[in-house]
Amino acid sequence: MSTSSPDLDAADALAPARAAFALAPELLYFNGNSLGPCTYKTIEHMRTVVEKQWGIEIIRGWNTAGWIDLPLQTGEKLSKILGAASGQSIVCDSTSINLYKLLSGALARHPTRKVVLLERGAFPTDNYIAQGIATREPRLELREVSARELPEALSDEVAAVVFSHVNYRSGERVDIPAMQRRAAHYDIPVVWDLAHSAGAVPLHLDDWGVEYAVGCGYKFLNGGPGAPGFAYVATRRIASLEPVLQGWFGHQQPFAFDPRYRPEDSIRRLQVGTPPILSMSALDSALDFLNQFELGELWVKSCRLFAHFMQALERTGLDEDFQLLTPRDPEARGSQISLEHPHAHEICRALAARGVIADYREPGVLRFALTPLYMRFQDVDSCVDHLATIMQTENWRRPEFRLREKVT
Amino acid sequence: MSTSSPDLDAADALAPARAAFALAPELLYFNGNSLGPCTYKTIEHMRTVVEKQWGIEIIRGWNTAGWIDLPLQTGEKLSKILGAASGQSIVCDSTSINLYKLLSGALARHPTRKVVLLERGAFPTDNYIAQGIATREPRLELREVSARELPEALSDEVAAVVFSHVNYRSGERVDIPAMQRRAAHYDIPVVWDLAHSAGAVPLHLDDWGVEYAVGCGYKFLNGGPGAPGFAYVATRRIASLEPVLQGWFGHQQPFAFDPRYRPEDSIRRLQVGTPPILSMSALDSALDFLNQFELGELWVKSCRLFAHFMQALERTGLDEDFQLLTPRDPEARGSQISLEHPHAHEICRALAARGVIADYREPGVLRFALTPLYMRFQDVDSCVDHLATIMQTENWRRPEFRLREKVT
Repeated sequence: MSTSSPDLDAADALAPARAAFALAPELLYFNGNSLGPCTYKTIEHMRTVVEKQWGIEIIRGWNTAGWIDLPLQTGEKLSKILGAASGQSIVCDSTSINLYKLLSGALARHPTRKVVLLERGAFPTDNYIAQGIATREPRLELREVSARELPEALSDEVAAVVFSHVNYRSGERVDIPAMQRRAAHYDIPVVWDLAHSAGAVPLHLDDWGVEYAVGCGYKFLNGGPGAPGFAYVATRRIASLEPVLQGWFGHQQPFAFDPRYRPEDSIRRLQVGTPPILSMSALDSALDFLNQFELGELWVKSCRLFAHFMQALERTGLDEDFQLLTPRDPEARGSQISLEHPHAHEICRALAARGVIADYREPGVLRFALTPLYMRFQDVDSCVDHLATIMQTENWRRPEFRLREKVT
Repeated sequence: MSTSSPDLDAADALAPARAAFALAPELLYFNGNSLGPCTYKTIEHMRTVVEKQWGIEIIRGWNTAGWIDLPLQTGEKLSKILGAASGQSIVCDSTSINLYKLLSGALARHPTRKVVLLERGAFPTDNYIAQGIATREPRLELREVSARELPEALSDEVAAVVFSHVNYRSGERVDIPAMQRRAAHYDIPVVWDLAHSAGAVPLHLDDWGVEYAVGCGYKFLNGGPGAPGFAYVATRRIASLEPVLQGWFGHQQPFAFDPRYRPEDSIRRLQVGTPPILSMSALDSALDFLNQFELGELWVKSCRLFAHFMQALERTGLDEDFQLLTPRDPEARGSQISLEHPHAHEICRALAARGVIADYREPGVLRFALTPLYMRFQDVDSCVDHLATIMQTENWRRPEFRLREKVT
């Protein structure tokens, strides 16, 4: 029924891409949604950036190495990944800080509306950022809703919405175009957090009517530890987005030393201080690599890896032992598999001891990222085999550990 | 009268330090207050960070390479440079964003006071940040004052002060302890910008009664292009500094995924999103190098370089042609020489064409950073000789170009 892994890998048009990454052959890496690995090209590029651009050019690197344009240049390299026309994306600061900028700015649209809708169970920093804004804007009332409750919660009392495209914990994916249409009906600004979808799921922000989005450079984009985040603002919303974090790199003429802040007309107004060139350069290089592929092609392989993982769980009988938090419907999920178990934390450590790098998230969730650029179908089998051995050895397959429903 | 440069270099105990930097032997680098150069140690360290820590450890690097502690660890490495006891310094985000955090937080101390005093002619981003805060806090009235006017401007109407220790353009230095005593009289929070003094001038923030300070990692600290900034908060002020940028890395338990933001008790509350590890690692390594030296020792050489530069201007007669913006009194300046001339921009380019990397700042200012770790007395002579040749060749020594007063 199911094709064997070696055959699947042999037939996989994306299989050669793994060789571009500095990954030990035996490493089973299922953590690309926490931190993507490094390519050999990026290693080479970082030597150039540190040793030639900084080392030899020093200050001249701002011009000769093009550092001054890097936030916009790297932003442009996101266009294809985000489904965004030119001039709407920029790389700067962190995802959290970019969310602060966009949410603060978007809240000016309806100064009398009170309600900010947040995602219940969002990656915490998103809601912390909103809480921070609310402490300074007493009019605001924060309400957490689930993805299911969101459509009904939209109304002309809603000042803004912050929601993940793909939930970090469950992998559930929201239907952005449907939600964006509903939000448009009440003219509600929605800031999407694409941390767990950019580089994983095909995105069409322009076509979907998205106005604001932020995301992360170090997960599926492989930009390196703590890579800068990105921000997307639809062209029609840039001019009205008043920067709250007013820094010299967002000024119309950063080097004119104008005493008065005047935001640049373009997306560059979202820049604040001097950008972290070394970290940004790694992301820039990683995007060059990613842009050689089509997201649609990656997504097809992600779905096949998902199906293969499910089959392996069934083959080993592990489908009885875990609760699958990730929807089976490909349209309703990102590129991960989340399994709940009371011993998830210990299982994650036991997997690591066997060379399987998965991820644990409080409370009780094992996350396996599916990363088509460097994941082999064989990796999925090996991973599930290790999982089965651990569950058997540690006696964690007992019925009392079973949760509400089994995987299938 | 004046000792010859080769003799001065031969007798200079700091002379061997230059060999640690990846600087071409012939390069005359007077721009260490814009971007410090790279050491060979940092080159080696960055290879380790990219190729081993990220390349091999990938996600495990957060623990095995200690990334998780890097913002605090690198902050601790500033203790000696800042004159700060442990637990008061952190490296994160940019100088601009750190200023936003400290000023926003400090403004909560006197909710009814209106006036924020800013430095006239400050590095623009500092005042832009304050302008951004003021657009959201209508009570605030921003007033720009000179360093001379500052003492008289302090009163019990002042909600906060933001001031540079050393002005980026002129190199003028404010007497922090005197100003801090006066501010304490009215209980005014002062946020000092140390961008042009950290690593250049001996600092004693604890002894001086400083409460808040920010600074830059890429100038005299040699942390690399766009290195993260730092923040210092005196222990007695940490608990009352409510973070406005509330991110998961500032939470008491970042990995507990608490839906409610609770700031960490320590200086770690100033962290927001995931720190840019690559950029921060370069700064961390640069501080290891700098900490091998005493700031007092560097400052003594800086003063000797200054005197030598002045002598060279006199020797060549150039003292007639420029206006010296930097005070001659060592207590009243930082580690730079700023010369004003109507053709400053062209002069700066002409110097660059001759391998002398200085800096131009609008309007009309040539800046020469004095960086004792890698600057030779011979460099000063060569620099001034090139300057004299350019001035003569281009016919810019004509009396009509002379400004209000000559250098001496």
